[in-house]
Amino acid sequence: MDPNIKKKVLRQITYGMYVMTAKEGDKVGAGTVNWLSQASFTPPLIMAAVKADSSVNEVLRTSGTFVVNVLSASQKQIAEDFFRPTKVEGAKLSGHAFKPGTSGSPVLDEAYCAFECKVTDMIAKGDHTVYVAEVTEVHQKRDDKPLEMWDTGWFYGG
Amino acid sequence: MDPNIKKKVLRQITYGMYVMTAKEGDKVGAGTVNWLSQASFTPPLIMAAVKADSSVNEVLRTSGTFVVNVLSASQKQIAEDFFRPTKVEGAKLSGHAFKPGTSGSPVLDEAYCAFECKVTDMIAKGDHTVYVAEVTEVHQKRDDKPLEMWDTGWFYGG
Repeated sequence: MDPNIKKKVLRQITYGMYVMTAKEGDKVGAGTVNWLSQASFTPPLIMAAVKADSSVNEVLRTSGTFVVNVLSASQKQIAEDFFRPTKVEGAKLSGHAFKPGTSGSPVLDEAYCAFECKVTDMIAKGDHTVYVAEVTEVHQKRDDKPLEMWDTGWFYGG
Repeated sequence: MDPNIKKKVLRQITYGMYVMTAKEGDKVGAGTVNWLSQASFTPPLIMAAVKADSSVNEVLRTSGTFVVNVLSASQKQIAEDFFRPTKVEGAKLSGHAFKPGTSGSPVLDEAYCAFECKVTDMIAKGDHTVYVAEVTEVHQKRDDKPLEMWDTGWFYGG
């Protein structure tokens, strides 16, 4: 398998951009995630592949719950803020206000919608951990359009 | 959880459109899939959630290998052809010419790129089966842009 063709072909997969957050005791993890999809209607399951050595993965491995904050088309900057290690300062997470969701994980005030998830299964095989999780709560603050990876000029895949 | 808000929120996830094919002996399964994402760089893994009662799922459960054919922005009609039950007639699959990939599963002639996968893990919990699979071969026939679900007017999620 030619590594350049592999990279090119796998980069044809279409993604959105999400900020995943998790909280366990005093520990909060957050990070941008794009390897994410629904995985069942009934029960409502999603699947996400999270960088194995990321702060959000460290926390959610023990918390078993997380929040997916959907970024809107105008919120590329928020994605960028969550590329860096998570900082909690007062009521802000990496500079962005949040409130705890039902499960305790941060729901960003600026996210136009978000959903809370409870891990049902995980597969730790590659450099990312695959989680399958049930959607337990949803939040919608306004109508908007999601940020698409194609519109950012970034790639995460290949 | 309000079912209408759940539907609206989960429909904010961004997807591409792919035709998944699988072959086992004389049986061929094929279908449109959008719940699909990369899941690791090293090894190169992808994850896909496949309708549990679909023909492609029936075949790939035993074949353990499948092909993901990436549709281009101009190939909405091909996606539609694979909504219907798979028909193999001569060298055509639901009306589209194909050649067997390295693993035997059909690679559509019209697909501008495709990748072959070998299942490593599966989770059969909801109305779709989650597969994690290693990418074992890639095909690129030309440069093009992928078909995005947002551009089709269809939804599969919620």
